[in-house]
Amino acid sequence: MVRLAPIAASLPATVPFVGPETLERQAGRPFAARLGANENGFGPSPRAVAAMQAAVPDVWKYGDSLSFDLTRALAAHHGIRPGNIIVGEGIDGLLGLLVRLTVAPGDVVVTSDGAYPTFNFHVAGFGGVLDKVPYRNDAEDPQALLDRAHQTGAKLVYLANPDNPMGSWHDGAVIEAMLDLLPDGALLVLDEAYAEFAPASAIPDIAADDPRVIRMRTFSKAHGMAGARVGYAIGHPDLIAAFDRVRNHFGVNRISQIGALAALQDGDWLAQVLARVDAARQRIAGIAAENGMAALPSATNFVAVDTGRDGAFARHLVDALAAQGVFIRMPGVAPLNRCIRISCAPDPELDILAQVLPQVMSTL
Amino acid sequence: MVRLAPIAASLPATVPFVGPETLERQAGRPFAARLGANENGFGPSPRAVAAMQAAVPDVWKYGDSLSFDLTRALAAHHGIRPGNIIVGEGIDGLLGLLVRLTVAPGDVVVTSDGAYPTFNFHVAGFGGVLDKVPYRNDAEDPQALLDRAHQTGAKLVYLANPDNPMGSWHDGAVIEAMLDLLPDGALLVLDEAYAEFAPASAIPDIAADDPRVIRMRTFSKAHGMAGARVGYAIGHPDLIAAFDRVRNHFGVNRISQIGALAALQDGDWLAQVLARVDAARQRIAGIAAENGMAALPSATNFVAVDTGRDGAFARHLVDALAAQGVFIRMPGVAPLNRCIRISCAPDPELDILAQVLPQVMSTL
Repeated sequence: MVRLAPIAASLPATVPFVGPETLERQAGRPFAARLGANENGFGPSPRAVAAMQAAVPDVWKYGDSLSFDLTRALAAHHGIRPGNIIVGEGIDGLLGLLVRLTVAPGDVVVTSDGAYPTFNFHVAGFGGVLDKVPYRNDAEDPQALLDRAHQTGAKLVYLANPDNPMGSWHDGAVIEAMLDLLPDGALLVLDEAYAEFAPASAIPDIAADDPRVIRMRTFSKAHGMAGARVGYAIGHPDLIAAFDRVRNHFGVNRISQIGALAALQDGDWLAQVLARVDAARQRIAGIAAENGMAALPSATNFVAVDTGRDGAFARHLVDALAAQGVFIRMPGVAPLNRCIRISCAPDPELDILAQVLPQVMSTL
Repeated sequence: MVRLAPIAASLPATVPFVGPETLERQAGRPFAARLGANENGFGPSPRAVAAMQAAVPDVWKYGDSLSFDLTRALAAHHGIRPGNIIVGEGIDGLLGLLVRLTVAPGDVVVTSDGAYPTFNFHVAGFGGVLDKVPYRNDAEDPQALLDRAHQTGAKLVYLANPDNPMGSWHDGAVIEAMLDLLPDGALLVLDEAYAEFAPASAIPDIAADDPRVIRMRTFSKAHGMAGARVGYAIGHPDLIAAFDRVRNHFGVNRISQIGALAALQDGDWLAQVLARVDAARQRIAGIAAENGMAALPSATNFVAVDTGRDGAFARHLVDALAAQGVFIRMPGVAPLNRCIRISCAPDPELDILAQVLPQVMSTL
């Protein structure tokens, strides 16, 4: 048989996430409400839709290997230089490349216990050693992350702000202060996938050339283009340039580049989506309250709902909702796993949630 | 500054290919004829175009992490089981994953000097040691590859059949015979990106469960969907399953999965494309002959044209054509680099080639 390399041979066969289509096939029918993957059912900008549809016949061409037009537009949008930006196949893809660039086998990476599993998948996948600190008050704990980074000599420190799966957030000033307290040579991986949904005060003011941090952004969430696989990282030009050493140079879909550019230019649509997401957050909180549960504050397009019980109860609830056609997810570790996580969505899907949840609760 | 991991720190900043859009930006104007990247200007199936356009509004959903429908259809198409197939972000992406799975730092990988640079990029990128054998009669040399694999204890042996950049091919029986002569534990990486353009006799009859080989196929070439980033590998189920340990599970674009499925189901369109490609090969050979050059036989959607001179002449020719708006490429090493490589394309683009080439030749 094929001889796998030692790291690959040591990896488990488990995968970070089971997708909703997989669950639908297992159940033998589609979900009526798709509220589990923090997708944005309000959809992409109509201008992005039109641009992508118009781009389809030209898909015989490879995409631009530099994502030049999109990178320039992003630089203008953020008021930084193109050399501070690398576009890639979603934050998932970029996190993998970043870990590959920085983590040698045995290197320590610090994150929070219950934070983004796909990041952990990449760290393990390159032989890194994960060191996890607990959440504090349902939020990632900057001081604990810093303390552990100093204790371990961590290469990377991962923090999502706002956080997934809890929807909590820190003030941007807290993130800025973290940078001065990082150990020398450690890099803060600031996952800002949900930044557009957060209050402006949650976004730190960090120079794009700051070598202590790399920020991750995406078109999968606020821009409603998860299936298009476009994300980008902002960082020091030397670190950004290093991605060229390892990335799949023609890997970003041609149609997606064009769609992302159009989405970026449609600020009116984004503003509408953000308003709808905010309304959906409030509606989900109301549905939770009607069922005796408490929504946690959210700066994202999902709401963590505290069941007031434990992880076993939340798991029963998730499974029972799935059996009734409602797809949600839940945090993976205690004490976060007393919660369920419900993605914002248009009213027809939340109507289904509102109808099904009381029935399910009455059976548990 | 950020401490790169040792392998990443050792890698050069060079990239495998400069894309046509980059060249266009350098020149300040678009190419009139895009004949350099072995794209398929006859385009995707109209059914695939329609399916992708219809899929655009739903791009807010992540793609199916298992590419389930496409994988099942591919299995039926090839008469094998879904467990023999992994769908990924083009052959480029799958080659990277394969190298990561199998090549530890210092492991030897055997390929041909002048064969696919992106494969070499991945091998170097994971710390593998490339050992190259020369082409023989403008074709990859199976016996030399086998001999070197035995001498070095190679983990991987790369062979493209048909070959890129020369367009040459071996009979399928030659590939089949190679398997019996591989060293124990070596894996043949059989890149069949151009298989659909080749005579049926060039396709080896290999059991999908054979653990000695992994075959790579793509929707980028015959199916005209290079910008969509969909390829697949066929191999032993244990090796195919190992991709799950390292791949970006939600990395395959949702629209692309749907488009590839539609393309696969449109055999009539594929047959038309293959006929047009064959006509274009003949026309390119005629244009070459009119200009005192000899087209090599091709089993691909491009034609290597022997200039009868050396690499410096071919480079001048490529550059002079680019200056006149005609994008082609050329092999990177001697003696292959006495040739230029011209991709098949619809007549309007070949008209431009036919018009510009004599002008350029007269100036050299």
